[in-house]
Amino acid sequence: MIIQKTSNSRIGDFDPNNIGFGAAFIDHMIICEYENGKWGDVKLMPYGPLPFTPAMMGVNYGQACFEGMKAYKDKDGEVYLFRPEKNFERINKSAKRLAMPEITEEMFIDGLKALVDVDRAWIPYGEGKSLYLRPLIFATEEALKARISNKYMFAIVATPVQSYYTEPVSVKISDYYSRAASGGVGNAKAAGNYAAAFYPTKLANEEGYEQIIWTDDATHEYFEESGTMNVFVRINDTIYTPPTSDKILDGVTRDSFIQLAKKRGIDIKVEPIEVAKVVEAHKNGELKEVWGVGTAVVTTAFKALGYKDEKLVLPILSDEESFAISLKKNLVDIQTNQSEDPFGWRVKVEKHILETV
Amino acid sequence: MIIQKTSNSRIGDFDPNNIGFGAAFIDHMIICEYENGKWGDVKLMPYGPLPFTPAMMGVNYGQACFEGMKAYKDKDGEVYLFRPEKNFERINKSAKRLAMPEITEEMFIDGLKALVDVDRAWIPYGEGKSLYLRPLIFATEEALKARISNKYMFAIVATPVQSYYTEPVSVKISDYYSRAASGGVGNAKAAGNYAAAFYPTKLANEEGYEQIIWTDDATHEYFEESGTMNVFVRINDTIYTPPTSDKILDGVTRDSFIQLAKKRGIDIKVEPIEVAKVVEAHKNGELKEVWGVGTAVVTTAFKALGYKDEKLVLPILSDEESFAISLKKNLVDIQTNQSEDPFGWRVKVEKHILETV
Repeated sequence: MIIQKTSNSRIGDFDPNNIGFGAAFIDHMIICEYENGKWGDVKLMPYGPLPFTPAMMGVNYGQACFEGMKAYKDKDGEVYLFRPEKNFERINKSAKRLAMPEITEEMFIDGLKALVDVDRAWIPYGEGKSLYLRPLIFATEEALKARISNKYMFAIVATPVQSYYTEPVSVKISDYYSRAASGGVGNAKAAGNYAAAFYPTKLANEEGYEQIIWTDDATHEYFEESGTMNVFVRINDTIYTPPTSDKILDGVTRDSFIQLAKKRGIDIKVEPIEVAKVVEAHKNGELKEVWGVGTAVVTTAFKALGYKDEKLVLPILSDEESFAISLKKNLVDIQTNQSEDPFGWRVKVEKHILETV
Repeated sequence: MIIQKTSNSRIGDFDPNNIGFGAAFIDHMIICEYENGKWGDVKLMPYGPLPFTPAMMGVNYGQACFEGMKAYKDKDGEVYLFRPEKNFERINKSAKRLAMPEITEEMFIDGLKALVDVDRAWIPYGEGKSLYLRPLIFATEEALKARISNKYMFAIVATPVQSYYTEPVSVKISDYYSRAASGGVGNAKAAGNYAAAFYPTKLANEEGYEQIIWTDDATHEYFEESGTMNVFVRINDTIYTPPTSDKILDGVTRDSFIQLAKKRGIDIKVEPIEVAKVVEAHKNGELKEVWGVGTAVVTTAFKALGYKDEKLVLPILSDEESFAISLKKNLVDIQTNQSEDPFGWRVKVEKHILETV
């Protein structure tokens, strides 16, 4: 690894008690460039601009994918990543689907650890706080033909964050717009998937909904994801979540929720969720909870589902009654070293890594 | 318009007899930046790198769309754009669907004319040669939250080109992968649509096909587009092309072909094309031609269609028999000022524009 530390830290300007989501960047970033069929050296350097022209293929043809991860600080100041090998696997699945070169585990995991270690002072401590990490790969060749790029950059940038949504939100069940096609890229963290969701989400916002529950594009009869989250539905005491597919992201938080629920003996079924079944359960008073999970939000509880002209208002459960809240607590306790880690999910970031890479 | 001409022209290195597609850039580019809710001044400046960090939203969330256009030089050295108002309308439709700010006609049309005029020496003259123009809009804000960007860049970059495909190609009718979802962004020139097509196209290449004919994602029973082109099918003496929809791009070349065919009295039907109908017509010897059209390729004739385990080999027609070839000639003659322009499609680029903008 090539190391070029900043001589001009900005941490003096950083107020850990006044954090947004994703606007202030830590002092350093990781970059690695691909050309002539291979990745070059990983470089840790000051966060800042690099020279790209508007002919860069990444912004012309959307060859770009990313991961979302967090580093957590415990009360003793130790720092942990959460299941980073899952994100490593997934970024390569995304890269493959977008015809981009896969990266090595060393680039990904060692890059993350080095960056988190060198800027560990930027990681805020406290409920809901963490360092959000953004590994990404994007095409950098300058060319105007719609073809696979020959040049790429792998980068990791990071920003201190606090909770994304704090209050339960209202979500609209989509009956027109779609997020993903069968045989498309919905299961990749492809950059273009996100832009495609912004306009329908803006329309939903104008109707008073914070987010959308996406449904299948052919019939709009089945749940897919919600916003940038996987979705869970609780009917009586059974939790349902859709199986992953080429249209649904294989979320790390989703998988962790499933494992945590199973360990607690909660009945959880990974199967297609029909909109009609959810509407029916609501009519019968059996729809107890609906929520979304993802790295950025951890868990967002839904207080109402908009469906066509109806608004299905969900019951307000206590923290003890809510599966969403108690599973979230189980997860966060593991992530932040407040509980045992029976799954081996936490990965401690050792100090002074730069001396050994 | 702010004008900053290069003092270091690279045109001496440019060989108009040895042109690729999209690899050499003309001396200048147009840029215009959006922030605080409005577009700033349009700037003509030397083509080259600008400072962007890997946190740029354009490569993280794919908020990026583009146009493809050409400027043509006639035998007297006069230069023409082709129906630029269509591309202007479309870039704003794309921008709207991706929740990006629309641009003004002045930014788009005057920007194009100024750029083409100042670098008119870069426009090659001769059959199949032109200057390919790439207007694009992409999100430039640095932020890691999946939301609508507050900052954008509009840019125009350009490269001299010659014909894209010269020989007829074999194409595979997709029976698994898809380009677009119903209620998605298939009808926008969204950056992410292109990256999503690269991997399936690579697989098709490995099976011996140059391109894919995309079909609807729900059933794979209807033609949509082919590669970066709209598709036309001729059965006996009738031409068919699918209607535009939220999954099919409203191509300028497509529209021009339809108008040219109608003017010539050719029977042309804009209606859904069933794969089964094409296969049946081939069996009966009634499938005469299938081709793709688009700004980059103009027309690409297909010599064979791969469908599941079959390969439907198409007849070889003479230039006189082929509708694809004769309609292409009609179009190119208008574009390059070799014929009358009954539709008013050509737009002449006047000289010394920079003195008046």
